[in-house]
Amino acid sequence: MDLSSYFPIWDRLTQAQQAQLTRSARLRTAPKGTLLHSGSEDCVGLLVVCSGALRAFILSPDGREVTIYRLFERDICLFSASCMLKSAQFDVSVEVERDAQLWIIPADVYQSVAASSAALANYTNELMASRFSDVMWLVEQILWRSQDKRLASFLLSESALQETRTLSITHDRIAAHMGTAREVVTRLLRYFQSEGMVRLTRGTVELTNEAKLRALAEA
Amino acid sequence: MDLSSYFPIWDRLTQAQQAQLTRSARLRTAPKGTLLHSGSEDCVGLLVVCSGALRAFILSPDGREVTIYRLFERDICLFSASCMLKSAQFDVSVEVERDAQLWIIPADVYQSVAASSAALANYTNELMASRFSDVMWLVEQILWRSQDKRLASFLLSESALQETRTLSITHDRIAAHMGTAREVVTRLLRYFQSEGMVRLTRGTVELTNEAKLRALAEA
Repeated sequence: MDLSSYFPIWDRLTQAQQAQLTRSARLRTAPKGTLLHSGSEDCVGLLVVCSGALRAFILSPDGREVTIYRLFERDICLFSASCMLKSAQFDVSVEVERDAQLWIIPADVYQSVAASSAALANYTNELMASRFSDVMWLVEQILWRSQDKRLASFLLSESALQETRTLSITHDRIAAHMGTAREVVTRLLRYFQSEGMVRLTRGTVELTNEAKLRALAEA
Repeated sequence: MDLSSYFPIWDRLTQAQQAQLTRSARLRTAPKGTLLHSGSEDCVGLLVVCSGALRAFILSPDGREVTIYRLFERDICLFSASCMLKSAQFDVSVEVERDAQLWIIPADVYQSVAASSAALANYTNELMASRFSDVMWLVEQILWRSQDKRLASFLLSESALQETRTLSITHDRIAAHMGTAREVVTRLLRYFQSEGMVRLTRGTVELTNEAKLRALAEA
């Protein structure tokens, strides 16, 4: 729960920098449904997820929400502090999806430490690249949605074939079946899990919502 | 054309860091159609555009290309050096769209300078946030595509109404007509311009490809 444990580069900050972050950070508990951040005019600060889950989404002009990524324990939400990036010109909202505890670091403090710490600035780059990857994945899902449908179909047919809801199968084997890369399968399965459609353990995929999988497969 | 002029934070690098970048950078001329970077296994380095235009795109499983952003003079392409970001897990290809001259900075050199320069690392963050904004805009376009169609329709009907291909109209007025924000209109018009559909000057919008606008409006 100590703030230091959430930053792999903590030891590369000076004591003064560590103190600056620690002094300014506030620990907050937020129940499911709390809107933590809304649009670009809002700059609540960096959110460091200690427990629970957050959902980042965008809003359509007619009020439709589209999830762009989720943040779980140990993830850090950068775009709730997007005022510190003058080139970030987009509106993301962040809400609590599962009761959460989080550290909030004010944007100006974080920015001021990053201004003098290459380690923190480079770590921020990695955080952004992670979210960028999430969004690129979403783009691909939207543009050529076939992979997730194919995976849903595969899981359902495999479950029917093996007469069990808990498939003993590796991501590698699924990828081979689908003629795609293991990384794609892993990413899709994690997405399915976050949507409550499957539960993953090492070596197994348990189907937890067949109706939703079927709806996806037939969409 | 001097490398220093492309980095607003150049003066905040040490002489040794400046020399390291300058020594390693190569100036390259690349004609239209050149594929500069292809997918994540490729790590050609940072591309600094001196002149011309680059196009970054992703490839669908069935070989369809989708443009995710364009880079013009003074823009810097980060994802052609994505090997330096271990969290960047996506494949972007970059090709020359208009004969280009560029500086190429090897990824390992750039990474090593950024590791010891907070200024360069923070500047890299801004570069990534810029591209992130481009991609978020694309996501919105894909998800709720109506705005660009509506703008195309508006320009065509306004042109017919005024009996001219060169409309004297501000972005504010267009936004008011469409019931949307000026920023949205400006961004869409710039996109239309990059696609050759309009030419923008202060206070006017010239329709340069009505067939393409019509195709978009009726898509």
